[in-house]
This record gives sequence, structure tokens and C-alpha cells, in this order.
Amino acid sequence: MMEIDEIYSTLTLEEKVSLLFGKGMWEIAGIRDIPDVIMVDGPHGVRKPIDIHTTGIFEGNNAATAFPILGALSSTWNVDLAYQVGETLANECHHYGVHVLLAPGVNIKRTPLGGRNFEYLSEDPILAGEIASAYINGLQENGIGTSLKHYAANNSEFERMTISSEVDERTLREIYLTAFEIAVKKSNPWLVMTSYNKVNGYRSEENPLLMNQILRSEWNYNGVTISDWGAVTNRLKGLQATLDIEMPGPSLSRQKQLVEQIRNSEVDEAVIEASVKRILELVVKAIEGKKFAKDTYDFDQHHLIAKQVAVEGTVLLKNDNDVLPIKKEKTKSVLVIGQHAINPRIGGKGGSAMVTPYSLDIPLEKMKEIAGDDITIHYVSGYDDFDPSKNEMNQKEAIALAKQVDKVIIFAGIPEELEEAEGFDKEVTKLPESQINLILSVVQEQPNMTVVLSNGSPLTMTGWIDQVPALVEGWFAGQAGGSAIADILFGLANPSGKLSETFPEHMAHNPAHLTYPGENGKVHYHEGVFVGYRYYDKKNIKPLFPFGHGLSYTEFTYESIQVNKKAINDTETVEVSVTVRNSGAMDGMEVIQLYVHDYESSVIRPLKELKKFEKVHLQSGEAKQITFTLAKRDFAFYDMASQGWRVETGLFDLLVGRSVADIRLSTTIHVTSTEVKKPVFTQKSLTKEWLQDENGKKIIMEFFAQLSDELNVKDKYTLSFLKECPIPAVISLFGQKWMDTNDAGAALDQLIAQVNHENKTSEGGL
Amino acid sequence: MMEIDEIYSTLTLEEKVSLLFGKGMWEIAGIRDIPDVIMVDGPHGVRKPIDIHTTGIFEGNNAATAFPILGALSSTWNVDLAYQVGETLANECHHYGVHVLLAPGVNIKRTPLGGRNFEYLSEDPILAGEIASAYINGLQENGIGTSLKHYAANNSEFERMTISSEVDERTLREIYLTAFEIAVKKSNPWLVMTSYNKVNGYRSEENPLLMNQILRSEWNYNGVTISDWGAVTNRLKGLQATLDIEMPGPSLSRQKQLVEQIRNSEVDEAVIEASVKRILELVVKAIEGKKFAKDTYDFDQHHLIAKQVAVEGTVLLKNDNDVLPIKKEKTKSVLVIGQHAINPRIGGKGGSAMVTPYSLDIPLEKMKEIAGDDITIHYVSGYDDFDPSKNEMNQKEAIALAKQVDKVIIFAGIPEELEEAEGFDKEVTKLPESQINLILSVVQEQPNMTVVLSNGSPLTMTGWIDQVPALVEGWFAGQAGGSAIADILFGLANPSGKLSETFPEHMAHNPAHLTYPGENGKVHYHEGVFVGYRYYDKKNIKPLFPFGHGLSYTEFTYESIQVNKKAINDTETVEVSVTVRNSGAMDGMEVIQLYVHDYESSVIRPLKELKKFEKVHLQSGEAKQITFTLAKRDFAFYDMASQGWRVETGLFDLLVGRSVADIRLSTTIHVTSTEVKKPVFTQKSLTKEWLQDENGKKIIMEFFAQLSDELNVKDKYTLSFLKECPIPAVISLFGQKWMDTNDAGAALDQLIAQVNHENKTSEGGL
Repeated sequence: MMEIDEIYSTLTLEEKVSLLFGKGMWEIAGIRDIPDVIMVDGPHGVRKPIDIHTTGIFEGNNAATAFPILGALSSTWNVDLAYQVGETLANECHHYGVHVLLAPGVNIKRTPLGGRNFEYLSEDPILAGEIASAYINGLQENGIGTSLKHYAANNSEFERMTISSEVDERTLREIYLTAFEIAVKKSNPWLVMTSYNKVNGYRSEENPLLMNQILRSEWNYNGVTISDWGAVTNRLKGLQATLDIEMPGPSLSRQKQLVEQIRNSEVDEAVIEASVKRILELVVKAIEGKKFAKDTYDFDQHHLIAKQVAVEGTVLLKNDNDVLPIKKEKTKSVLVIGQHAINPRIGGKGGSAMVTPYSLDIPLEKMKEIAGDDITIHYVSGYDDFDPSKNEMNQKEAIALAKQVDKVIIFAGIPEELEEAEGFDKEVTKLPESQINLILSVVQEQPNMTVVLSNGSPLTMTGWIDQVPALVEGWFAGQAGGSAIADILFGLANPSGKLSETFPEHMAHNPAHLTYPGENGKVHYHEGVFVGYRYYDKKNIKPLFPFGHGLSYTEFTYESIQVNKKAINDTETVEVSVTVRNSGAMDGMEVIQLYVHDYESSVIRPLKELKKFEKVHLQSGEAKQITFTLAKRDFAFYDMASQGWRVETGLFDLLVGRSVADIRLSTTIHVTSTEVKKPVFTQKSLTKEWLQDENGKKIIMEFFAQLSDELNVKDKYTLSFLKECPIPAVISLFGQKWMDTNDAGAALDQLIAQVNHENKTSEGGL
Repeated sequence: MMEIDEIYSTLTLEEKVSLLFGKGMWEIAGIRDIPDVIMVDGPHGVRKPIDIHTTGIFEGNNAATAFPILGALSSTWNVDLAYQVGETLANECHHYGVHVLLAPGVNIKRTPLGGRNFEYLSEDPILAGEIASAYINGLQENGIGTSLKHYAANNSEFERMTISSEVDERTLREIYLTAFEIAVKKSNPWLVMTSYNKVNGYRSEENPLLMNQILRSEWNYNGVTISDWGAVTNRLKGLQATLDIEMPGPSLSRQKQLVEQIRNSEVDEAVIEASVKRILELVVKAIEGKKFAKDTYDFDQHHLIAKQVAVEGTVLLKNDNDVLPIKKEKTKSVLVIGQHAINPRIGGKGGSAMVTPYSLDIPLEKMKEIAGDDITIHYVSGYDDFDPSKNEMNQKEAIALAKQVDKVIIFAGIPEELEEAEGFDKEVTKLPESQINLILSVVQEQPNMTVVLSNGSPLTMTGWIDQVPALVEGWFAGQAGGSAIADILFGLANPSGKLSETFPEHMAHNPAHLTYPGENGKVHYHEGVFVGYRYYDKKNIKPLFPFGHGLSYTEFTYESIQVNKKAINDTETVEVSVTVRNSGAMDGMEVIQLYVHDYESSVIRPLKELKKFEKVHLQSGEAKQITFTLAKRDFAFYDMASQGWRVETGLFDLLVGRSVADIRLSTTIHVTSTEVKKPVFTQKSLTKEWLQDENGKKIIMEFFAQLSDELNVKDKYTLSFLKECPIPAVISLFGQKWMDTNDAGAALDQLIAQVNHENKTSEGGL
């Protein structure tokens, strides 16, 4: 066991400073007796460069289990499975001598155009936070550290290293920070990685609000903070904002500069000490974590975990006329079309998320295995994303064959060329024209068609989706995606994935559309808290497929909802119980989603906010009761006035359903705020505020009656006319004569004193 | 003729100060030899209180010609007619001894919920500005002053006297100020009235940007500024912002305070002098204006002008199967339903816009006059907005009669009770349920139905619009609305109105929905420049009826479009000529609308912006060529970086059509900016900026080649990965080894110096 204080006391200033920088691309520490700590990407597999001194960004990595993208993991809505993923990744880290996996990413998906969306979890902070927390626990409880990233408001790649995300603080708190907050508080990641962008004009790693105040002070985070690679522009400012490590290193000239700055007392010694000690603590954890290492690892078993994620993350978006699953008793021949069936995309391209797969399941092969001798599987490519000159011929061939079979399965998707990668945003969210043409031509000949999609984030489907009876969102499904999709298509697995982000009908419908990608170095998050489904819901814009949506081969019936209290104070909790039955013929899993709706609020709020969810397995006919516990935060908004989470007294709907757009059960409870205060009146108080207050109403109505004969306060319209006016304006408009003999300011002051006194008295002297 | 300097020199300080305040509610000036100037509301008629010392807000006004609301005037799209309205109002002002009409209002309609929308013109600044300008000229060229209001960003009534409209400056300039700018520059109103609200935290009448900089300095406005009634909270700050008059007055305690402040030198004497002299100049104009007074006025003639506005402002929204007009040869009996047919709403309720009508046309009576003996007109009330208990009986009666007639005309609309008034916003934008039920019940029995609407701003029509074949937007149509609608229904007049604002399908679709009405004293205009049709267009949200939409009883064919140049510099103008033919059988009027679309911009712009329009009368078969002249401003956006209107070199579409959603002709021209500058490179310049520049590309590609073996700049993905990065980040990521022997900062400085030098040289030493 390293003695941190002891080691610290023996370090020279230069050594301390050297710890504040990476040791190359993927290592930190590693001076004197302090061992190296090796950190590699994440999040979809252990991406360790064969030569640790290379970047590995473009090539040259060790093979490892390639999991489905995080967008697929979140579509499982299965926190236990996320934990298993973390555990499996931990095993492979041990295998490769890695101490920290640079993952997961929990940034909120603001627009489907974000280039790294596939590496992030959801448009909803609760879903992202809960999945991330389980993933982190799976790693850290098995001795491998994580680095929660990218803190914060890193939601697109456009000018990613210089742009400022301009977000009001309520929106930051309610949307963009909540997933980080959940992960930090529930799972305490060893590291937190700052983002490339600025937030409200301050670079993330220098941001006093994000770093000093929220992360360190409010959330009490004592782990190591680390810059994104190449992000730091001012090491001293970062240090003052508690940024512990600049990556990559060694950046010797910066080290030298920092040593000078410390010698010149430009920074407090305590700041250095805190950072260095946090780093030494990390080294201790890394050493101790190696106790969890085993002698051997079963990569075949890891493959099965990857497959389970692919199975549960696959979302059955549409299944008219029960086109799926393929049933042997009804099907003699199936035509599979599309290169993705023989050359699957397992992940996004490039950057931290690209994994060299340990093995690879080919969808077509896996389908043939299941079909066996009972069903003939034909294959044609149908389209060629890289050589469009072949499309006409391919298409003809596909049409000819399609007529002769019982079913067609088209594997469509985003080609590898440039799209869905770290470093730049997407330009299109449609399938290539060649694929759309193919789908439309083939479905005319063979209506028994299923399209399987391979993509990292939502697609728009104008012009073809209405013609296609069945649609499966397969994502970039990792190395075992081929067997997963085969199982689902043939009904060996029952789909249970639910969308973790909204699929819009048109990209223009996206909430960020009017301000994306930003201009003049800023991107304004003007949609505020209305991100994802919160926007479509509030704006009454029907999406193509709503958040939380996903079909099954069986049926689920939502039978009853109960609360253990109909009214609570905001210091209490309430339990909501829901009974759900598998009323269909096949075993399956269902995700029960609980949304909260506030009836009335002094701020503008979403119509529904996801607060709880649980995935349950139900055998055919089986029913289970799920119980959720709701507390203050689940009803609260972030109140800028009091700088805290606040519940306003009133009614709340608890809405339980299969998606945000398919609510099956609801109940209402009353929450009473324990922080209610009587209003304090001022010269600026509006007539309506006086009228809302019992004492105020009496006083102001008497005053109006004497102000002017023209003020007939018994007339409804007159009162409505006055309600938005402060009293001085009412006096100016109607009391010019009254002012001949009265001092307006003094008279109003007297009324204000009177009402405030009466209100104080009625509160019992508060 | 008053000699202003001479008068000024004789005034005591107290007298000067008294001129800076109203003399009661509706008068200013009026001290010593200086006569009173009488100002009354506006905008829909001369609203002079019988007793000038009362407010007249709720009752007690002289009768005057009640024109249709400004929302109807703008729906005429007829600037000549707007001029005639101004002229007619001038006559009535002379008749009543009034010097100034407190009108027109040109605030942009941001949301249909705005309580005063009916007093404003449009969601489009060009349409609002041009109509207002003609209206002002009609008044002022006939000796009566106007007061352009409410300057600025007064777009709802919620907390109207205290709320701050938070609007970014580009949006202010492009949307909310442009109509004021047009009116000020083209028509120089005698007064400009400030708004109740704050703008970006500063009260309007104290706002340095709005008042000192934009209005006075940029637009060179030398007229009088006047507060909205009761708005002023700090007279001194207003004065410093060049607010000349506080209304109402006399506010003696404030006068006394201001005298003291002047004596204490809290304000420069020159400021007082400028204000007082502007007020004295107004008095001179008011006196001289009376030369235009005539001996008698023909109010019957005024009535016909009001009728013409009602005719041309009426918008035929829907007319399936040519249900309209009613033709004597095909129709024997018509059932008219609805109280609005016998008790029409002529204007919004209360506040400045309520006029006591001089005479009143009743729709039902006017229809009977036209029908004569040829068609039997029946009437039933059908619904009762004030006594719903009668609805069932009324409805039965209506249904019974509807079966027996050839046609049904339902007069529906917003009841007078509370809705559509100054002082508070609307809560609903739907017809009352009783009316909707009636429409649906009756149309089942009698599909030959027309609904005539009476309302001040857009309605949503979910649940009934699809069932109704014909729909006429009649607005609050003033005292002659009854004869106007009768003429239109029977085809004695051909409808030519076009919507001056979008009718959304759902109110949630409105661009302001997510931030309306505001909270914590602020309302954020987060939709930016995407107001009205600019929003629906860009967001791909289909409105119920688009901006500019309006049907006719005849057909118009857009035959050709020509430009006199295919390419211009931004210092030149271009002429666009369009030939339009009345290809139908009836004479009629058409509004030709010209929109501009910028292909590519460094800022996010609307897809279409209205720049020109013209209303033409075309006999059946007749064709006319209309020519519009476009100049720099028509292609420009307001550029925050250079604080001015800027055109970026590139292609622009010129789109001509019948509405924003019905473009009939288009052409493309190229505009070259005369302000292009070569980029100046810095340490913060991004890789993509280097690559876009010819010299920059060469230099940076050479540099990358030597930085690291891992940087294969020939690989497309690698380049894409780098493009959003500034060069120091590229060095940090890929050049850690290179930095062992190189000084990164110095090396980059050298590259920057080189590229900037080469660019300077190639510009010829600029």
C-alpha cells in the first residue's frame, strides 16, 4: 500500500508537475516508484493500441470484444445488463493490463446530427444516468476504473474544440448535468473527463460553475478530473478549476511553464497538493484493482454478453400483420438483401469508439444456421454503396428473386464512408438513395418485407416507411450483432428494446434545428429543457417513432396502478405500484416507464418527464407488480431564484406506459411544498399579485375604489385590464386627479407596509 | 407661425418641464400662448372621449367611423387603401378638433395569444412596415400627426408593464425593429410611442440601444417620443434616453422632482432643450395641420372606405366545390346561423382600439337586401355564447331548418366576453364548444356550408375544419363589415384578402410556445428570427393556413419571371418582372408576393423572407407585368460581427407566389459582396479554415506531413477528424514526439505569419 502523504512529501516540484500531465498518450503517473496507470478507450470495447505509444485512433489496436454502441445499450433499458457489460469490460482490461477504461459517455443527444451520438446513451438524463451508473459499477466493482465523459454539454462535433455551448443554468441542471450527477453520486467514477467545448464562454476544464462549484462542491466529487485529449489551452486556469491531469503529455514546455508559475506563486500550493494527491489515490486504486484479475478469460462468454446486449437493444419499430418473426411452418424461402447482411457495421467509425473485434458473427450465416434445411435462404447484395453503377443490375436481380420467395429481409444502413464517426457531425440522416429505391422497388413485388437497420442514431424515413410493414432497428450491434438479429428475425429471441431517443419525422422537427450547428463560435441551446421527447410532446409534433417505443412478439397488459399515499409533503416519498401481465403467447421482456407531469408551475415545464423505469421478464401469462419510489427531486424543477431544486404545491400526474406516447395507466397525487412563503409586496407588485393574496386583495380593492370614479372594479373587464399593471401605473392612468391631494408614493408605501404586516402576522410571526 | 427659439428663450424652467409631461390624459403643451395639442386613440377610428378629461378607455367616446382592425387592414395587402384609411381618419380628426391620432401599431405578432394582436399588422416586418407607412402618410399628408407605436418588442400583454422582452440584437433588427424603421424612414411620424415592456432588461423609454442609438442616431429621427400611458418609472432616465413626453400628466410630484434634478445638474440643459424644442415643433405642425380642415365631412363616404377595407381584408380560406359565392340561379333558400350575423363584433374589446361606431351594417340585413325576392334568407341563432342552456334547443332548430335549405352560412366567432382585448392575453384560440358542436351537427345534415369567422387573430380549428367546405375569415370588420361580407358571400365582391399571419394547426406549433408567456420577469424570444412563417417553413411544420394565403372567385396564372441582371454587386439593384394573368371568369385582385432565399450563409437564415408585394386589379383575361426592384438590404442579414447589414457572396432564389407555401415562379441571381476580406489566421483558427484557404491549405498540409507518421492526410477520414480542431490541439494529439525537438508555439506562429503575409500579398497589399 502506497502511503500518499509520504510519497507526496518526497516529490520535487518538477515531479509533482509531471504528474499533472499524461505520460504519453495512454499513461499517467509512472515516475520513481510510482507505477504507470494505463488508460484506454472505451466505451464499446477495450481499445488498447498494440504499441501503447501510438494514438490507435485510426488503426493498430488489440482485438477485444466489440460491444454494441452505447445507443444500443441504452435501448435495452436494462441496468443489470449494463452492469454485466461493465464487468466483462473489466475482465478484458485485466487481460490487457489496463487500469482505467475511458468510458462511459453520458452527454445528452440534442440532435441526431451529433457525430458522436452513437457513443452516448440517450436524450433523457435519467435513462442515461442509470445505465451509465450500472456500467461504471460493473467495471469499478471489478477493479477497473472508469472516466465519465465528456463533462459537459458536448452535444455536437461542429467546431468541437472551440465552440461555446450556451445553455441557461436551469437547462444545464435539469438536462445536461443530471446524468453526470446520477453517475457521480451513485457510482463515483475514478475519473471525470472534461469536454472539448466551452460552456457559456468558459472552457469546460476551466469552468468555475461546472468544476469548482457543481462537481467538487455540490456533488462532493473527490476523484481525478482529466482533460479531453488536446483540449487544454491554459494549464494554470485548468488547475485552478481543479483539473488534475492534462492529456496527452508530456507537453514538456507546458510543464516548465507551470513550474515557473508555481514558483511565482501564481497558484496556491494547496491546489497542486490536492491535485497530486487525488492522482496518487488513483494510482493506489489502480494497483489495488489488479487484485480482481483472473488467470484466464473466456472471450466466448464475453461474446455472449455482447450478443445479449444486441438482442435486448434491438428495437422492433414496426411489425404490421405480424410479418415477424419468420416461422418455419409458414415459410419455405427467404430472400436476404443488402451488404450489411454479409459485412455488418459493428460500430461507429474512428476515434475512441472503434474496436477491433475479437470475433464476428455474420447475419446471413447465422440466419442460415437457424433456417437449417427447413427454409431456403437466398442472398443478393441489392445495392452497392461504394459503386452505384451496379445498382440497376443489383436491383433487377433483387426484384426477380423477391417475387419467388415468401419473405424478404433487407439489411439497410448507413455506409461506413465518413458517416457516424468521432470528429465531425453527420450531414444526412437518411438511407442512401440507392437503398431507398431498392426498398421501394422490392416491396412492390413482395409486400412481405422486413427492413433491418444498421445505424448509430435516428434516421428519417420519408417516402418509404409507409410502404414497409416491418422495421427492425438493429443499430451498430457489435461483434455478436449477426447472431442477435438472426435470433430475433426467427423468433428465437423476443425483441424488448425501446428507443432511448426520438426518431423525428423530419430532421427540421428536431428541437435544435433552428440553432444547430451554431454561429460565431456559439451554439445556443434555445430549446431549453425541451430536449428530445420533452419537445415533441410539448410542441404537439408527432415523431416518426416516439421515445420509449418498441414492439414485442407478445402482448403486455397494464392492469392496475396504486399509490400508497394520495398526498405527500415534499420531504416524504411515495410508492407507486403497477401490475403488468404478459397477455400474449410468447415469453418476453417489457420496460415499464414512469413519467411525471406537473399540473401547474411558475416556470414552463415539459408535459412528461421520465423518472423511473424497470425492465421485467414475464413468461406468457405471468403478471408482476413493480414498485417505484418517488421523492422530492422527481417532482422538482431547478429554481433559479432559490438556486435549488424546488417543488411547488399542487397536483402531479404519475403516468405509466410503454412509451412516452403510449401511456397505459395514470394516477394523480398532491405534493405540498414545505418551503412555501407568503409573497412580499413591493412597488413593483402587479395588481394580479395583490388580488391573489387574501389580505392584498382587500387592501387594493379598497384603494382602487377611492382612486377614481372611472375604476369600476366590479366590472370583469376593468379588473382584467388592470391585472398585469403594477400599482404606480394604475395611479398614473387613473389617479392624476387623486394625486392633486395625495402623495402617491407614500400612499402606496403605506398599503405595502400594511399588507406585508398582515401577512407576517397571519404566518405566526415568520 | 411660432418662433421656436424665441418661445423657448422665454420659458421658465418649470414651464419647460411642464411641457415634458402630458396635460391630462389626451393633451400636451397648452401653456401661455402655446396651444393645446389633442391626441386621441387610434388605430381603428378616432376615439375621442366626449369629456376629454376622462380616460375613455371603458366608455364615453364620440362616435366615429369604426374601421376594421389593423389585422384586417394588413390582410388587404393594399398600401393605397391603407393611405385612404389614413386620409379618412385625418378628416375625422379635423372634424373633432384632434391634432394627433395615436396610431398605428406595428409590433410583430409573435404569438396568436397576444391580447393586442388585433391592433397590430402582421408577423412580417415588411408587410407591417409598408402598410403602416401608407397609413401614416394618409394622415400626415392631410395635416394630422401620428404616433407610431409601441417601440419596441411589445408582443404580448402578460405582465406587460414589467416584463423584459429578451431578444438578441440580430432578431431585433431583422424582425422587431424593421417595421418601425420602414415607417420612420418612409413616413417620419410626428411621434413615436415607446412600449410598456423592457427590452433586454432596460425599460423601453430608457433604452439606450433603442432610443439614443437606433432611433435617434441611426434612423435620424427628430420627432417627438412619448411614453405609453403610465409606463414611466424614472423620468430622468427617460429624458436621458430622449423620451420627450411622459403620459399621462401632469404628474406634478414628478415635475417637481425633475426641476430639482435639473437644478442639481443631474441632466444636461441641452437634453431638456432638445426635448422641449421637439415638442414645440410638434405644436407648430399641429397648428399648421389644421389648414387641411374642411368645412364638412361626408361620413357616408368614410363608411364606404371602411367597407372597402372590410371587403379587401376578408380572406377566403377554403372554398371546396365552389360552395361560394351564392348564385341566384342555383339557390332558392339560405339559412344564416349565428349571433354574429345580427350582432357583429366590429373590433376588439376595450383599450385604445375600441371605437364607438358612427353607423353599423348588420350582415343578415345586408344579405337580405342583396337576396331580394330571389332567395329566401332564414335566420336562427343556433348557439348562445352567454346562455349555454339554450344551446341544445338552438341546435335542434338549426338542424331542422338546415335540411330544408340549399345553403347554410354560419357566422361563428370569438364572443365579446373578455377575449381579444387590450390589457391581457388570450387564453384560448378555439371557437367556443357550443359553436363547434353546432357546426359539426349542421354540416352532417347540410354539407353545403360556409363558416364566416369573426375574430381578431388566428384560430385553431381541430376537429371541424375538415368537415366544412367553405371558410371565410371576416375578422372584426368594423362598422361596414356587414355589407362587406354580404357582397362577398353573394359574389358582388371578389375576395382578395391574404393572410398577414400564419394560422397554425395547433397552438403548440407556434414558435413562441416554449417560452410564452415568460417567467421570472423575462420572456425569451428563443425562436430568434424564426417568427411566423419563417418558423413553419424552416421547421417543416405544415400550418393550417399559410402566411399570404387567400383564395379568389377567379383564377390567376403566373406566366413568366425575368430579371434584368443575372449577377449583381451588393451596391447595385436588380429588377424582377413578373407577368400575372386573370385566367378566370371574374374580375378580381391578386397580391403578388416576392420572397428571397439565401443559398448559403454563415448565419442560420429563414428559407424565405418576404421582400416585396403588390396588389393588382385584373379584369377577366387581363395580364399585367409587375416589376420589383431589389437592393442590398433585400439580400442582407444583420451581421453582429460588423454591426451592420451584410450580404454574403452567393446565389439567391427570387420566389414569386400566391402565398409563402404556394410559389409559382422562381429565378436565381448571384450577388457579390463588395466587402469580402481574406481570413486572418490566428492560433485559434481551425484546420478547416486553413484548408479552405488556398495558401493556408498548402502550408498546413506540409506541416501535418512532418508532424507525425500517424497523420496520413491523404486519408479522407483523418482529414475529417482534424477539420474541427485548432492546430495547437492537432499538435498536442499527434506531435508530442515532434515537440521534443520543436517549439510548438513558435512554429505555429511562423506558419501564421507566413499565411497572413502570402494572403496580404495576393490581395495587393491590402
